[in-house]
Amino acid sequence: MKQKITAVPSIRRLPSYLHIIRGAKDDGQEYISGTVIAQELHLEPIQVRKDLAITGIVGKPKKGYPVVALMAAIEHFLGWDEMQQAVLVGAGNLGTALCGYQGFHFHGLNIVAAFDSDPQKIGTSIHGVHVFSLETLSHQVRTLKASIAIVTVPSQFAQDVTNMLVEAGITAIWNFTNIKLNVPDSVVVQKEDLSSGYAMLCVMMNAQKNRETQ
Amino acid sequence: MKQKITAVPSIRRLPSYLHIIRGAKDDGQEYISGTVIAQELHLEPIQVRKDLAITGIVGKPKKGYPVVALMAAIEHFLGWDEMQQAVLVGAGNLGTALCGYQGFHFHGLNIVAAFDSDPQKIGTSIHGVHVFSLETLSHQVRTLKASIAIVTVPSQFAQDVTNMLVEAGITAIWNFTNIKLNVPDSVVVQKEDLSSGYAMLCVMMNAQKNRETQ
Repeated sequence: MKQKITAVPSIRRLPSYLHIIRGAKDDGQEYISGTVIAQELHLEPIQVRKDLAITGIVGKPKKGYPVVALMAAIEHFLGWDEMQQAVLVGAGNLGTALCGYQGFHFHGLNIVAAFDSDPQKIGTSIHGVHVFSLETLSHQVRTLKASIAIVTVPSQFAQDVTNMLVEAGITAIWNFTNIKLNVPDSVVVQKEDLSSGYAMLCVMMNAQKNRETQ
Repeated sequence: MKQKITAVPSIRRLPSYLHIIRGAKDDGQEYISGTVIAQELHLEPIQVRKDLAITGIVGKPKKGYPVVALMAAIEHFLGWDEMQQAVLVGAGNLGTALCGYQGFHFHGLNIVAAFDSDPQKIGTSIHGVHVFSLETLSHQVRTLKASIAIVTVPSQFAQDVTNMLVEAGITAIWNFTNIKLNVPDSVVVQKEDLSSGYAMLCVMMNAQKNRETQ
């Protein structure tokens, strides 16, 4: 049985806090208050303080949080203070977009290789990431000491690719397909579901319409 | 001031329930229990029942939920029982991937036009969606009666594009850039932050490591 992760919404908000705190640091600020962060993100200050508390940091009354220590606390909590080697499987449009996403480097995520079965893609580079044949996956994952795999293959290939990744020693899978992957208990999977975000947008639209007709 | 949306994690889970319930319907099942849905998604049954309750539906003891009525309740709650016209701005890799995402049709999302400023892309089609010049955006949005815009442009253009969209009458923006968009109170924005999912993956990895070393 896998450990249950509590405070999921708080964890999901931490990257947006980090983004703002980094901006404050770049502006030369020494302290940042929970209220300022809350205003930027349209959240309640009490919520921001609760969320930040999970990293173990406590603000000072009137001054707020020391910017450098706060950044370090969040990054350490998320494990983003250590660089992680990742491979990407499926060099299609989504895979290409992810390889080009600048933000990942800030988060300690280093995509070191991509894999595809399309001979036209094998041997090319996408945003500086070399595309290898899927047949070399097991060998490359071990050589590159990658622990994370980003899966962006068409859904019908997702489970087979996952089996190869687990066999090769991958312990964390970021799943962008719309199927639920079967993995051993020792492997963690984060499934990205675009529909969740669209559901949120729709519920906000409905709430807005109801407000306007009231 | 915008209305605050409560039950965010519940709303975010509804699409995954819908996916399973649809499968049950395709298998010819008349009823589905909260426990079965919970097992599929590694959730607690009580959580599933609470989440489904926000749509107004209540299960029957021992039988569970009537499949057809449950699907209808979720779809109606999300507004997915009515087709929405959407435009996409930024026909890069991510935009192309989104245009090709099969799941959206199930959710009543119809991407009717894409826009880009690249002359090489204008006039082409991506997954059956025509790419228009950004200059025609205002005219097209009105003609096509689109209410939703999906923004996948490079971040530095995101606010300008947003201003154009709001001016053209768009009331809901699905923001895939990493900047916070300024919009009037009458416009809703859902920001997709890939970093949130990566944060979850990292916290799960850490929890797993701690479990193994205990």
